[in-house]
Amino acid sequence: MAEAPTHLLERVLSQRVSLVLKDSRQLSGKLLGVDEHMNLVLDDADEKTSEVTRHLGRVVVRGSNVVFLNAPQGAAGKPT
Amino acid sequence: MAEAPTHLLERVLSQRVSLVLKDSRQLSGKLLGVDEHMNLVLDDADEKTSEVTRHLGRVVVRGSNVVFLNAPQGAAGKPT
Amino acid sequence: MAEAPTHLLERVLSQRVSLVLKDSRQLSGKLLGVDEHMNLVLDDADEKTSEVTRHLGRVVVRGSNVVFLNAPQGAAGKPT
Amino acid sequence: MAEAPTHLLERVLSQRVSLVLKDSRQLSGKLLGVDEHMNLVLDDADEKTSEVTRHLGRVVVRGSNVVFLNAPQGAAGKPT
Amino acid sequence: MAEAPTHLLERVLSQRVSLVLKDSRQLSGKLLGVDEHMNLVLDDADEKTSEVTRHLGRVVVRGSNVVFLNAPQGAAGKPT
Amino acid sequence: MAEAPTHLLERVLSQRVSLVLKDSRQLSGKLLGVDEHMNLVLDDADEKTSEVTRHLGRVVVRGSNVVFLNAPQGAAGKPT
Amino acid sequence: MAEAPTHLLERVLSQRVSLVLKDSRQLSGKLLGVDEHMNLVLDDADEKTSEVTRHLGRVVVRGSNVVFLNAPQGAAGKPT
Repeated sequence: MAEAPTHLLERVLSQRVSLVLKDSRQLSGKLLGVDEHMNLVLDDADEKTSEVTRHLGRVVVRGSNVVFLNAPQGAAGKPT
Repeated sequence: MAEAPTHLLERVLSQRVSLVLKDSRQLSGKLLGVDEHMNLVLDDADEKTSEVTRHLGRVVVRGSNVVFLNAPQGAAGKPT
Repeated sequence: MAEAPTHLLERVLSQRVSLVLKDSRQLSGKLLGVDEHMNLVLDDADEKTSEVTRHLGRVVVRGSNVVFLNAPQGAAGKPT
Repeated sequence: MAEAPTHLLERVLSQRVSLVLKDSRQLSGKLLGVDEHMNLVLDDADEKTSEVTRHLGRVVVRGSNVVFLNAPQGAAGKPT
Repeated sequence: MAEAPTHLLERVLSQRVSLVLKDSRQLSGKLLGVDEHMNLVLDDADEKTSEVTRHLGRVVVRGSNVVFLNAPQGAAGKPT
Repeated sequence: MAEAPTHLLERVLSQRVSLVLKDSRQLSGKLLGVDEHMNLVLDDADEKTSEVTRHLGRVVVRGSNVVFLNAPQGAAGKPT
Repeated sequence: MAEAPTHLLERVLSQRVSLVLKDSRQLSGKLLGVDEHMNLVLDDADEKTSEVTRHLGRVVVRGSNVVFLNAPQGAAGKPT
């Protein structure tokens, strides 16, 4: 019943996720890709800081900045 | 009688744990998965900062942000 | 349908991208090159901080400073 | 007469140690386990910050947060 | 037409470049050498902080401090 | 006549050294052990911050926190 | 005519160099040794912060703290 972190990330591909980054930015978007460094591709992304919200479109997030990723709980996902 | 850190983490899978992160956030949730970088999957997670408490659901925490994990002491756990 | 982060970066080569760096600088420019550390080459780059905007020309960005890269959404790109 | 750092840590297993962490937290507890990253398992742990003292129970500390570990001087320890 | 970051650095050897470092220092000088960590050798270097400008002469910069390097745009460079 | 950093550390084993750490703490003690990460074992150690001086006894310092180590200049040392 | 960073460091062995560290300390001394992490051995070293200047004697500097090293420009050096 154990779920490897990278496996969960692959399971939520094509679903909408939220990210908290080290500089306190929050990003949300549809997860298009992930690799073993937790580098992520988000589509239709939005950024929220304590000051602004803005639409970004497609972004590549460097994994070293990620604190945690919030995935939809009931995520069925698709096997990769 | 020595207990390897990764072994203990596997022993408490499916139990509720608390995390202190480098940015002082505290997360708690049911531990669903872990890997050798201390990346963690939590289910039914809650976040507590000095300012807010909020329910997150399922999260993947990047291990590099973890200061320590607080596991239930009497944890019997299940062998993986 | 999954898109690897490095693959997306290669797909947007020769297109204009924006970068957010760890020290909050923002750079934009035409992406000329990228490697596995997310080191980037930008041409015709501009830098924007909270205080100044200045033209830089050609820059090499060390990947460890990158928070995220914002790529054009409809990017067709060229295969490398 | 030289003593390797990891060897000393193994020698003080099952003894009470104190830790100073990078965020200035101090933890103390009985050392149950250690690995080559200086990840540590403490039992019956207490946390002391400049503001609070609280009992934690069993914790796994990520080694990258450790500044130093204070071991009992006369520690006889048990060979592992 | 893609240009690898390390390749560009080798192409501008013996030309004058500017560096922005993580602590906001700016260095400029003639690029004499570079390696795969982005460690750099500059000759006839100048340092500019928000407070002072001073001549340094020959310096070795540890690559981990580099945010970005600004190379002359029309740089023809010499193959190494 | 060149002296490798790790070699010097081995040569001053069993002598008293001072350490400056990244968080500005200063530790001094008799150097009992060292490894390739500059993890150190000190015996009879003292800690000095801008605020307090306290006796620590035996400590294991994680090498990643070390800024520099000050060794006795005329150190004859013992070959290891 | 390119000069590898590590090669330059070896060429200035036994000469007096200055270091700027990440915590803004400045050290100067005669360079006795260097390794591939830019760990350095200085002899007859002095430390200069914004507040104090003090004589240190022989020091081992952990390379991860080095921002840059300032070498004598006309350094002839000795091959190692």
